[in-house]
Amino acid sequence: MAKQIPNRILLPENLVPQQWYNLRADMPVKPAPLLNPGTGEPLKEEELYPIFCQELAHQELDDDTRYIDIPAEVLEYYKTFRPSPLHRAYRLEKELGTPAKIYFKFEGNNTSGSHKLNSAIAQAYYAKEQGLAGLTTETGAGQWGTALAMACAHFKLPLTVYMVKGSYQQKPYRRSIIQTFGAEIIPSPSDTTNAGRGILAAQPDTTGSLGCAISEAVEKAVTSEGYRYVLGSVLNQVLLHQSVIGLEAKAALELYDEYPDVIIGCAGGGSNLGGLIAPFMQDKLTGKADPRIVAVEPASCPSFTRGVYAYDFCDTAKVTPLAKMYTLGSGFIPGANHAGGLRYHGMSPILSSLYHDGRMEAVAYEQTNVFKAAMLFSRTEGILPAPESSHAIRAAVDEALKCKESGEAKTILFGLTGTGYFDMSAYEQFLNGSMTDQIPTDEELQANFPQG
Amino acid sequence: MAKQIPNRILLPENLVPQQWYNLRADMPVKPAPLLNPGTGEPLKEEELYPIFCQELAHQELDDDTRYIDIPAEVLEYYKTFRPSPLHRAYRLEKELGTPAKIYFKFEGNNTSGSHKLNSAIAQAYYAKEQGLAGLTTETGAGQWGTALAMACAHFKLPLTVYMVKGSYQQKPYRRSIIQTFGAEIIPSPSDTTNAGRGILAAQPDTTGSLGCAISEAVEKAVTSEGYRYVLGSVLNQVLLHQSVIGLEAKAALELYDEYPDVIIGCAGGGSNLGGLIAPFMQDKLTGKADPRIVAVEPASCPSFTRGVYAYDFCDTAKVTPLAKMYTLGSGFIPGANHAGGLRYHGMSPILSSLYHDGRMEAVAYEQTNVFKAAMLFSRTEGILPAPESSHAIRAAVDEALKCKESGEAKTILFGLTGTGYFDMSAYEQFLNGSMTDQIPTDEELQANFPQG
Repeated sequence: MAKQIPNRILLPENLVPQQWYNLRADMPVKPAPLLNPGTGEPLKEEELYPIFCQELAHQELDDDTRYIDIPAEVLEYYKTFRPSPLHRAYRLEKELGTPAKIYFKFEGNNTSGSHKLNSAIAQAYYAKEQGLAGLTTETGAGQWGTALAMACAHFKLPLTVYMVKGSYQQKPYRRSIIQTFGAEIIPSPSDTTNAGRGILAAQPDTTGSLGCAISEAVEKAVTSEGYRYVLGSVLNQVLLHQSVIGLEAKAALELYDEYPDVIIGCAGGGSNLGGLIAPFMQDKLTGKADPRIVAVEPASCPSFTRGVYAYDFCDTAKVTPLAKMYTLGSGFIPGANHAGGLRYHGMSPILSSLYHDGRMEAVAYEQTNVFKAAMLFSRTEGILPAPESSHAIRAAVDEALKCKESGEAKTILFGLTGTGYFDMSAYEQFLNGSMTDQIPTDEELQANFPQG
Repeated sequence: MAKQIPNRILLPENLVPQQWYNLRADMPVKPAPLLNPGTGEPLKEEELYPIFCQELAHQELDDDTRYIDIPAEVLEYYKTFRPSPLHRAYRLEKELGTPAKIYFKFEGNNTSGSHKLNSAIAQAYYAKEQGLAGLTTETGAGQWGTALAMACAHFKLPLTVYMVKGSYQQKPYRRSIIQTFGAEIIPSPSDTTNAGRGILAAQPDTTGSLGCAISEAVEKAVTSEGYRYVLGSVLNQVLLHQSVIGLEAKAALELYDEYPDVIIGCAGGGSNLGGLIAPFMQDKLTGKADPRIVAVEPASCPSFTRGVYAYDFCDTAKVTPLAKMYTLGSGFIPGANHAGGLRYHGMSPILSSLYHDGRMEAVAYEQTNVFKAAMLFSRTEGILPAPESSHAIRAAVDEALKCKESGEAKTILFGLTGTGYFDMSAYEQFLNGSMTDQIPTDEELQANFPQG
C-alpha cells in the first residue's frame, strides 16, 4: 500500500543535503564565460578578486566540480530555517477539481521572507573567512537586502545596501527591517558613486532599476578598502548555493516515490529557478528522466520570451563583466510591476544556456492574471505568496487545469519562493481594481537590445 | 553521552499531540464561573448558545475533562504549519555570555503571523459543524483577525471583523491581508451597532479599544440570523486549544532530557501564556515539578501587576457576561503601545485564578526596554519578533543575565508568539528614537476599576 502523503513533508535530519550541487558539471554545453569588457577575453579568476571574495570568484568560474561541501558554519545556520517544507497542495487541487498532484517547495519561512537567505549566509561566510572589512550589494524588492543584512548581522560584517529608489520610497518597512539588522541603506541612483551621479544627471527623476543599483554597489565595493560586492541572483555561485532547494525537494518527493512531470519556477535573475531545478535538470542531462521545466516571467520584463541571447552588461552603467544571457538590454527599465524581484533585464547565464539548448520552456504572464492565482492560492492553501512566487502559482494552476481537461494525473512541482507580507499595497491594488498591466511594445524592447 | 541539542527541534510525527489538555481539570481551585450580569448567577451552557456555538459553549464551561480529542479536520489543518519549531537560542546565549540555556517556542511561521491560528481553525471548525451562517469577531493588532479570516476561508464561512479603529488606520496592510482572505472588515467603534453608536456619541474622536470592538462584534452576532461570536483570547476554550503549544514544547524538550526552570510568556488576554504553560502548570499542580512561571505585560496596560482581581465585563459597552479576572476596568483604554495584542483591560480567568493562588509571577516592562531586547534578538537569532512577543524576550534576556551574575546554568523557555512584519512602524520609531513610554498613574487606573 502506498504511503499516505502528508500535506507538509519535512525532510528527516539524515537526508538533509550536506553538499551543494554544481549543475555546470553535468552540462554538455557549458554556460558562456564572463568576458572582460576591455579586452573581450574570458575573465580569469584573479580578475574577479577586486569584485568578489576569492572563494566565490572560484565558485563562479568552476564548471567542473560536481558537488561542493556546504561549510559547517553555513550548515549550522541552515538548521535554523531548513529543511524548508515541501507542501502537497491538496486544498488547491480540490478547489480546482484537477486530477493533478500539486507540490510546492516553500522557502518563505524565514525572516528574509524568501529563498535569498540560502545564498546570503554562504556569501557572508566566505567574506568573513577572507577577513573582509565589509560588503556592498543592491536590492530591488528588498528580500535579498533583508537576507544579506541578516547574514551580515550573524557574522558582524558591515553592509551597505543600494536599494532601487522606487522600492525605497514604496516600501519604507523593507528599509526598516534592513536597518533593524544593522545595515546602511542608500536609495539608488544616489550621489555616493560616479555611476549614480551619471544616471541622475541624465535622468534626474528616475526611480532607479536593479541594473543601476548594481552599478553603484559594484563601484562602492571596488573603491572601498577591504570591501567586496555580492549579488543575490544571476551568478553561477548563487545558483550553486540555491541548489539546496532542489536537492531537498527531490529527496522529500523520493520519500513518497514521487517524481515531478513538470517543474515550475518564477524567473527574475534565475536564483530560485536554477536552485529548484538543479537535480532534476541533472536527471535530464544524464538521461535519467525527462521532466518538463518551465520558467515563468512577468510580461512587463520578458527576458526569456522576448529578449535576445547575447553578451551584455549586468548593470546599467556598464561597470560589470559581460555575460552571455537572455537580455532585454542593460538600459531597459521595465514598467511598473509589483514583482520587484523579477524586474531584471538579464537572466542567469546557466539558465540562458539551457533554455537556448531547448532544455526548458518559458512563459510570461500579466500581473493581474498572476494576482488572481495569488488570491486563489491564499484562500485555499493559507499562505500569502509574494508577487514573484505568484507567477509560478499561475503557471502551476494553468497546468493543473489542463490536466482537468485531459484527465491526466500529472505531478506538478513549483517553487513558492516567498511571502507577500511586504507587498500588501499590491494586494490592495488588486482588491480595489486599480492594478494594471504594462507590456512593452516590440519597438520599446528593440531600442534597448545590446548591439553587435 | 548527552545528545547534541540542535538549534531547531522539530517534533517527529509520532509525538505530535492528538488531544488538547484542559488545565482546569487539574486545578484544585477552579476559575470563578462566568456570571449572568442580569441575575448575578453562574451562566448555564444553554445561556451561552446565542453567543457561542454549542461545542465551544460546552468547552467554555467544562472544568472536568482533562484531555479533549482534536478533531481530525483540525489536526489535518494543523499539519500545514505544526508542529511549530522549538529553537535553542545558542546565538543569543553566546551574545549575552550567559551560562543559561534559552529555548523559545516559535509560533510565527504561518500566514497569520502568530499562535492565533491554533484556536481560530478549531473555532471555525465547530461553527461549520453546527451549520452556522457566519461568524463575527474583533481584532486589535490584526493577528487574530488574520488567523480567523484564514480559518473561515478554509471552511468557506462568512466573517465580519471589527478592527480597533486605531489599528485600522495605522495598519492598512493588516486590513488588506484580512480582505485577501475574504472577510469583511469594519473599523470600531462604528455606526453598525448600538454599542458602537453609543461609544461614538460619547467619544466621537476615540480610536477605539479591544473592549469596544468586542461589544460591537457580540452585538452583531446576536442580532444576525445564524451568526455567532468568536474570541481569540481570554476564554477558557481558547486556552484549551492553545495547549497544543505547551504540549509540543514539553515533548520536544523531553527528547533531549530537558525541563525548564523558568517558563516565560507575554500576556494580553492570556491565550499564548495559558497554552504554553499548560502542561508545565499541570506538573506544578500535581507535584511533579515546580518551574517558575512568569507572565510579562506592558507597563502601559498592567492587568496582573497593577489591576484588581474582581468580576468585570469583558467589553466596554457591558454586553458580555461577567468574568472574574485581573482587570483594569472595562472602561480602561491604555495609552499608545505598539503591542496591540497586549492592550486588553482584563486577563484570562484561568490565569487570573492561578496568579491569585500564587502559582505564577508577573512583571511589566516599558516598550522602549522591550524593543531593545527585540533588536538584540533579531540580530542574533535572525527572527524579527512581534512587539507582543518581545515582552517575553525582554524577560528571558533579563533572566539569562541574572544567570550570568550568579553563574547558574538555568534552563529558560519562552514563547515567541509571532513575527513583527506588520509592526515595522514601531521598529522605525525605535530606530529613529521617537518611541515613548506611557505609564498610567495610580489615579488613572483607580478611576476605571470595577465597582463593588
